[in-house]
Amino acid sequence: MNVLLVYAHPEPRSLNGAIRDFVVQRLRAAGNEVQVSDLYAMQWKPQLDAFDSKVPPADAPFHPSLDSKHAFENGLQSDDIAREQDKLRWADAVILQFPLWWFSMPAILKGWVERVYAYGFAYGVGEHSDERWGDRYGEGTLAGKRAMLIVTTGGWESHYSARGINGPIDDILFPIHHGILYYPGFDVLPPYLVYRTSKVDAVRFGEIREELGQRLDTLWTTAPIPFRRQNAGDYRIPQLTLRDEVAPQTVGFAAHVEAARV
Amino acid sequence: MNVLLVYAHPEPRSLNGAIRDFVVQRLRAAGNEVQVSDLYAMQWKPQLDAFDSKVPPADAPFHPSLDSKHAFENGLQSDDIAREQDKLRWADAVILQFPLWWFSMPAILKGWVERVYAYGFAYGVGEHSDERWGDRYGEGTLAGKRAMLIVTTGGWESHYSARGINGPIDDILFPIHHGILYYPGFDVLPPYLVYRTSKVDAVRFGEIREELGQRLDTLWTTAPIPFRRQNAGDYRIPQLTLRDEVAPQTVGFAAHVEAARV
Repeated sequence: MNVLLVYAHPEPRSLNGAIRDFVVQRLRAAGNEVQVSDLYAMQWKPQLDAFDSKVPPADAPFHPSLDSKHAFENGLQSDDIAREQDKLRWADAVILQFPLWWFSMPAILKGWVERVYAYGFAYGVGEHSDERWGDRYGEGTLAGKRAMLIVTTGGWESHYSARGINGPIDDILFPIHHGILYYPGFDVLPPYLVYRTSKVDAVRFGEIREELGQRLDTLWTTAPIPFRRQNAGDYRIPQLTLRDEVAPQTVGFAAHVEAARV
Repeated sequence: MNVLLVYAHPEPRSLNGAIRDFVVQRLRAAGNEVQVSDLYAMQWKPQLDAFDSKVPPADAPFHPSLDSKHAFENGLQSDDIAREQDKLRWADAVILQFPLWWFSMPAILKGWVERVYAYGFAYGVGEHSDERWGDRYGEGTLAGKRAMLIVTTGGWESHYSARGINGPIDDILFPIHHGILYYPGFDVLPPYLVYRTSKVDAVRFGEIREELGQRLDTLWTTAPIPFRRQNAGDYRIPQLTLRDEVAPQTVGFAAHVEAARV
């Protein structure tokens, strides 16, 4: 199978660099093809702007979504964007690996999402009607592919627990899992987390290899997070609120996972 | 009073550009001093890397937090970073204005946070002991200053409601409000949101001026979101989990707001 690893850390001689090397080696040893988008090494352009089209608008104001649509539909996207989209089409699974900086992904990776996720590719796909609100949240260009996060944090696991001060890690990652990965169609696997990175020594790194190796060996069989499909009946359209009878006592991110607490 | 507006949209002739101009004019008319960090116009460097120090490590691996600390403590930060820190010191209030892209801030603004929020400036401040876990979440370099978000979205307000498919807007913004603004000490005001941007016409823009004008006129008096202070007794240290008797039935982001639902 084909795996794309999108990796965002500035220093190869780091814990993240060591994890990346382990991931690539483990996946290849199991017979997978692996491509790595090493965003810092590629000097990936983070900011979305008019130069994402080979023919930027001359006099007209730049419009982020409409100009993205025009470039996508007319083969005018800058080459770096088109190449990443080709990698996504090729991949059976995509892994995003990054250190959690200020409770989200590094800017360079956020900019990969913003630029590669073109209008017509990752959003603005499919019919909008009384019954469907586009191909998204369970449908879309990337449907049938799997995605998983590998995330490191300096903070302790307890700081990210249900009553930990930073907020629960599942809620912190929900905008990525649900809003960035599930949105264009990925099946999203539970993340692999490494906490308290400054304390990772050789013994702990051995444990990480063991745990993460298991996760990579079961990449094709692990059950995805059961997010609710937008167009399958749980949501009113176009309001896109859950119907009253669906998880009736639940609000917030948890309501969008099937079998959510009620 | 002094206001810093950090603005992240690539096109001045846009709804965001018009809102920015209105904000600056309204605040100045009320007698405030205003500085604008227009990140696209400044060609702000988004990616955090070794070149954020004037003397990058020659042979040693680059370490994002420790090298930030070294540069901050020794006056080696790149000039663009030091200038933004000076603006933050000068400001009595900071407004971050941006379009919500993929459920978070644009990459260029995320990179402003990552680079300007140096170790020793916005984190790694204060004593770590059995009673305190650094000056953060209610204390810190930026304590006594106010902060507020102005955010535009293409999606509808209902999509961001308590049971809306994207998740509640307060939860989507929590990592910014609590994790980026409250963390180094800001008092965080409720955000001002503009939904469904493609439908904003002259009439709707008149309403926005009215509503947002009110928010700007009350910038110095609006009650902040009552996030809980880390070192004031609600949390166990160093686990940083809420004590059992604090909001005992509540988990998740809401537990970190006083008078949270129980």
